[in-house]
Amino acid sequence: MADSIKRTELSELGEFGFIKRLTQKIKLGNTSSVTGIGDDAAVLDYKEKQVVITTDMLVEGVHLDLTYAPLKHIGYKAASVNFSDIYAMNAHPKQILVSIAVSNRFSVEALEEVYEGIVLACNTHQVDLVGGDTTSSLSGLVISITAVGEAEKDEIVYRSGAEEHDLLCVSGDLGAAYLGLQILEREKQIFKDNPKIQPDLEGYDYILERQLKPEARKDIIQLLKEFNIKPSSMIDISDGLASEAIHICQSSNVGCSIYEEKIPIDPTAINTANKLNLDPTMCALSGGEDYELLFTIKQPDFEKIKDNPHFSVIGHITDKNAGAQLISKGGHQTELTAQGWDAFLTKEKE
Amino acid sequence: MADSIKRTELSELGEFGFIKRLTQKIKLGNTSSVTGIGDDAAVLDYKEKQVVITTDMLVEGVHLDLTYAPLKHIGYKAASVNFSDIYAMNAHPKQILVSIAVSNRFSVEALEEVYEGIVLACNTHQVDLVGGDTTSSLSGLVISITAVGEAEKDEIVYRSGAEEHDLLCVSGDLGAAYLGLQILEREKQIFKDNPKIQPDLEGYDYILERQLKPEARKDIIQLLKEFNIKPSSMIDISDGLASEAIHICQSSNVGCSIYEEKIPIDPTAINTANKLNLDPTMCALSGGEDYELLFTIKQPDFEKIKDNPHFSVIGHITDKNAGAQLISKGGHQTELTAQGWDAFLTKEKE
Repeated sequence: MADSIKRTELSELGEFGFIKRLTQKIKLGNTSSVTGIGDDAAVLDYKEKQVVITTDMLVEGVHLDLTYAPLKHIGYKAASVNFSDIYAMNAHPKQILVSIAVSNRFSVEALEEVYEGIVLACNTHQVDLVGGDTTSSLSGLVISITAVGEAEKDEIVYRSGAEEHDLLCVSGDLGAAYLGLQILEREKQIFKDNPKIQPDLEGYDYILERQLKPEARKDIIQLLKEFNIKPSSMIDISDGLASEAIHICQSSNVGCSIYEEKIPIDPTAINTANKLNLDPTMCALSGGEDYELLFTIKQPDFEKIKDNPHFSVIGHITDKNAGAQLISKGGHQTELTAQGWDAFLTKEKE
Repeated sequence: MADSIKRTELSELGEFGFIKRLTQKIKLGNTSSVTGIGDDAAVLDYKEKQVVITTDMLVEGVHLDLTYAPLKHIGYKAASVNFSDIYAMNAHPKQILVSIAVSNRFSVEALEEVYEGIVLACNTHQVDLVGGDTTSSLSGLVISITAVGEAEKDEIVYRSGAEEHDLLCVSGDLGAAYLGLQILEREKQIFKDNPKIQPDLEGYDYILERQLKPEARKDIIQLLKEFNIKPSSMIDISDGLASEAIHICQSSNVGCSIYEEKIPIDPTAINTANKLNLDPTMCALSGGEDYELLFTIKQPDFEKIKDNPHFSVIGHITDKNAGAQLISKGGHQTELTAQGWDAFLTKEKE
C-alpha cells in the first residue's frame, strides 16, 4: 500500500476530527451549491434547471487493487467514473458526496491521498464536494460516490432516443483501459513469483493511464454543443462497447450494425493485444472501463463531425428485428453479446 | 443470517439480471422524479424549490450486526436514518439512491429482503428509489444510501441559527435505542456461550424496536408546520443528545443549558438502564441512534407546543462563553462532552 512517511492513526483524530481536517481545504465554487459539509444535509439550488444524479460503489478486491493503483489515482478514478455518467446524460456535474469506509490498516495520510485524488478530479471538472460519510470497515476500502449535475430540460439525452438510420458514434478510442489492466495484472503476477524483478511497464504509458486515471469526457459534451448537435441517445462505456450498444438498442427499441473496421483502437492497444494473444476488437467490445461516450446522431449531423479526430462513426441504428450486429472486417455478421465484466463473479475471501 | 428457504445465487442472475428483477417492482410517485433507474443517471425536477441531499454508509460489523438484526430491518433503518437527516433540515425526502455491496454468502433472496426493507421505508415516507449500484464485496455487507429532499428556500433550517434565549426542544424520548442495543448484545453473548438458551427479550419490545426499526420523525416536521413554528436551528440525534447539542452550539456560536430532569426518557428505558447498572441520563446523552429531532424555538412559540406530548423543552440557549452545560437534578452544573459513538475505534478483522 502506498503510504506517506508520517503515519497518523484514524482513531487518534476520530471521525469529527478527520472531517474537520478535511473540510478546511474544501471551498464551494458553484452557484448551485448553497451549503456543503457541516449540516445534516447539503443544500443545492438548481433554479429552473433539471437535476441529474448518479451513484457508484467501488470495493477493494473487486474494483480496486491497491497493489498497483496509487491511492490518489483511486480517488481520481472514483470521482471520474461518476462524472462520466453525468456527461452521458449531456449534463454537467456540479456536486459530489463521498462516502469512504476504511480499515485501520489505512492511516489518516493514506485516506487523505484518496481524497486528494477526488478533489483533483473535482477541480478539473469544477465540481464541489458537498457531503459524505467517513467510517471504518472490518476489511478493505469501499468508496461510494454520488454525483449531482444539471442540464436544461430539453438538453438531457437519454439512452432511449435512438431511431432507425441514426449514426452510431463513439468518442476517443476503445480497449486500452482493459489492456492496461492486463499489463498490470501480468506484472503483479511476476512480482508475486519473484519480488526482485522490477515491473516492466515501459512503452505502456498510454494504456496504463487509460486504466489508472481515466478522464470523463467533458470536452466531448462541449464539442457537441459547439457543433450544435444534440445526440438522439447516449451512454458512457463502462462495461465495453457491446454491452453499452445493447443497452441503447434495448432502451430505444431498435437494432444496430457496428462495423469492426470502424472501431477506434489505439496502436499501443493493438500492439499490446497482439503481444498478449488477445483480439483487439474483443478488447474494445468487452473490455470496458474506457469511459468514452457512445451516442447516436441524425445523418445530417455527420458533416459536422466527420473530420474531427475525437469522433468515430462506427455504425448505424437498424430496425429492432435486425438485433445488435457486428460486421467483421471480412464481412461476416455476428450478434453482439454483452460480456461486460460482472462483479458478482468475484469469489468471497473470508 | 436470516435467509429465505429458496436460495438463488447472485452469480446466477448477474448484476443486470438482479437490477431487472428489482426494478420491475419499483414505481415512481413524486412529481420531482422525472426518470429513475435505467439510464446513466436519474433525472429530477425541483422547479423553484431547493434541493437537500445527504448520504450515509453502513458497514457490517461496524454499524450492522446480522446476528440479531433481520435483513429487512437493516434496509428499513438504512433508509430511515437518511430520511431523518432530510427532516432535520425541515425538508421532505423525495428520492433515494441505494448502493449495496454483498459477498456471495448472500443469496438473491437475502439481498431482496434488504431492498424490501428499504422500499417499505420509502413507501412510508413517499420516497422514490431512483438509482443505485449493486456489487459484490470480498467480505460482508455495505449499504450506502443518498437521500434527496426538497424545501422552499425560506423553510430550510440549519444547525447555525440558534440564538441566546431560544428554547432547546427535543421530540419523543431518548436513550431507548442504545438500551435496546445493550439487551441485544447481552443476549448475543449468552447465545454465544450457550446456543441452547433462548433469548430473553420479553418486556423489551419498545427499546428493541427503537434500536432495530427507528422511525424518522416526519410527523414532527408536519406538526411544527401546523403550529406555524419554524425552528431557529435543528439537528437529528444520531450520536447522542450531548454531541448534537454541541454541534448546534458550535455551528450557531452559542452555549446552552440542558436540565437533566427535563430530558424525556421512556419508563422501559429507565428500568432497563437500572437493571444494567447504567445511568439513564448518560444513555440519553451519549447513547445515540434515537433519530429524534433536537431543535431551538423562539420563546413566544412555547405556548404552541407546551401541552403536546411529542415535544419536550429541555433547556435554553445561552451566551457562547457559558459553554454547553448540563444542570443535574441536584442542581450541579457540568460541561457537556461529545462521547458519540466513534466508528473509527473498531478494530480491523483480517
